[in-house]
Amino acid sequence: MTHGLNTIRFVSVDAMMRLVHHVGVESFLTGLAAYVEADFRRWESFDKSPRVASHSPGGVIELMPTSDGALYAFKYVNGHPQNGRLGRQTVTAFGVLAEVDTGYPTLLSEMTLLTALRTAATSAVAARALARPDSRTMALIGNGAQSEFQALAFRALLGIETLRLYDIDPAATERCAANLAPLGFSITRCTSAEEAVQGADIVTTATADKRQATILSDNMVGAGQHLNAVGGDCPGKTELAEAILHRASIFVEYPEQTRIEGEIQQLAPDHAVTELWQVLSGLAPGRTGADQITLFDSVGFATEDFSALRFVADCIAGTEYFEELDLLADPDEPRDLFGMLMRARPGEAA
Amino acid sequence: MTHGLNTIRFVSVDAMMRLVHHVGVESFLTGLAAYVEADFRRWESFDKSPRVASHSPGGVIELMPTSDGALYAFKYVNGHPQNGRLGRQTVTAFGVLAEVDTGYPTLLSEMTLLTALRTAATSAVAARALARPDSRTMALIGNGAQSEFQALAFRALLGIETLRLYDIDPAATERCAANLAPLGFSITRCTSAEEAVQGADIVTTATADKRQATILSDNMVGAGQHLNAVGGDCPGKTELAEAILHRASIFVEYPEQTRIEGEIQQLAPDHAVTELWQVLSGLAPGRTGADQITLFDSVGFATEDFSALRFVADCIAGTEYFEELDLLADPDEPRDLFGMLMRARPGEAA
Repeated sequence: MTHGLNTIRFVSVDAMMRLVHHVGVESFLTGLAAYVEADFRRWESFDKSPRVASHSPGGVIELMPTSDGALYAFKYVNGHPQNGRLGRQTVTAFGVLAEVDTGYPTLLSEMTLLTALRTAATSAVAARALARPDSRTMALIGNGAQSEFQALAFRALLGIETLRLYDIDPAATERCAANLAPLGFSITRCTSAEEAVQGADIVTTATADKRQATILSDNMVGAGQHLNAVGGDCPGKTELAEAILHRASIFVEYPEQTRIEGEIQQLAPDHAVTELWQVLSGLAPGRTGADQITLFDSVGFATEDFSALRFVADCIAGTEYFEELDLLADPDEPRDLFGMLMRARPGEAA
Repeated sequence: MTHGLNTIRFVSVDAMMRLVHHVGVESFLTGLAAYVEADFRRWESFDKSPRVASHSPGGVIELMPTSDGALYAFKYVNGHPQNGRLGRQTVTAFGVLAEVDTGYPTLLSEMTLLTALRTAATSAVAARALARPDSRTMALIGNGAQSEFQALAFRALLGIETLRLYDIDPAATERCAANLAPLGFSITRCTSAEEAVQGADIVTTATADKRQATILSDNMVGAGQHLNAVGGDCPGKTELAEAILHRASIFVEYPEQTRIEGEIQQLAPDHAVTELWQVLSGLAPGRTGADQITLFDSVGFATEDFSALRFVADCIAGTEYFEELDLLADPDEPRDLFGMLMRARPGEAA
């Protein structure tokens, strides 16, 4: 397809689902993870700032911009815990990629699915650097919208085939198991978080309830485990008992944001943490022993969305998984915007 | 058209042009001005913050969010002075309107044209409050993409029929005159800014060159004039000699932003200015005498884009001037995002 000066590429939800299946879900996660990791390794080339949030009683709407000097991206994302009652998603998102040189947007993409995929890919990138290499079993606590994506990403990147599922809502566990069992996972449905973590090398927490305080208590975490804490991602929302944080080596995306939104909001502002990009770049050690407890305190960062949009832009090149959207005015003469409007009068010769 | 949970309304450039002609350009400007003025009058109900800018050697990309507690809007806009050389617009823009209660976006609209329209409408709203009521003649200095919109907005709101045009590029003046003469304006083409301002009740400056320092010098501005300074809109870009500012009563949109971006960046940070919303609300005087020089130091603010998107959303209701865009994931069961993806597998029963 030709790409005119007046159009940008648009990836709808339907096109994204077809693209993911065209590539294959696990191949998509693997490819996406490679982009996420590559961008973490050039962390210092990004303009970084905390997200721009608009809070209201019902939730939050955020804009997450970043740029590497060549490409600019932002994501629009909302978080409204009560949306489920209305049959709506708690989180919806879309994103835009643009050229820094011209300021022209080039891609608009749905990001509700893409955010779920990039969150899982990022978790797996972190775990590949931090979990014990012989990890085989993952506890998955919180079996909501993020859970299956986590499972597939961990199988794609770390070979995890054995899952122990738990959710406060047994129907969620049932649904998660029903979605994953046909894909070849070995699944144990657990009736408590305590049961789920038994024998788990990796523990992923991805619960959604803003008011839930402690998904993992101190006695549930053992030597050598890797904790992948995905659900603690805004002020007042944490999943781990504070005592665990004092026993764990903590790895974060962007400390300025994680100290506000992540598990470490429970800690003193100067508590030592390691930035994931430094581990992935070889500038800081990741796991240093088989008995160490490692924690990836994941809150999601703008560079991951940038990586995801960059990956999608590359994936769709030459495919039919997008359409052209007439979003940009393109007058024949750039200063003659009004002339363009006048020539569009009904009955006017084109 | 039905509006599903998975779609948002999209107004393309083509649809916007058809909508504007359907309503009529001047009626559209009048309607838009009413929304802009109404929102200025409830200024205190808005969340306001300076725009979020990403600067690069070639220009800037900005996000401009605001909310009134019921609706949320943001605009994406770039400014790249060298784009004209590439046959591209210096400024392109699009915007999104969303519901605060659910965080769901409801409208995506082109805003290159719409920004030109709202800027002109805002100028005319300010001038209606600040110019002498007997104003009949407007000098229009800078005959680029904004110029014709200014002319039409001032005719629609203030009855201005007589224009004195000047641009450093005579071809721009010629094009502006050729666009406006058929619409019934009385037009004088001037060969200097000095000539243009002679006998003008209102002087609009809308030049684009970042490096230009002084479009109006002190001796060019006389008693009783209203100055509508549109082009000074980023750090380092001003159009008026500083001496003029000391003789004028200055009115601004959002002082925190104007002191950085507007003409008043030339002044001390505590120089007295009046906020336009206070004049429109009757809380502060506008023009107090026939000899007073009034200046609207316009830089453009997020609430004006909010008003414009709100106006467009109301305009398109029940019309065909939009399409539905499949931007939002809408699984049957909100937590089952993965199930929605799996059911979209090629060959899967729908």
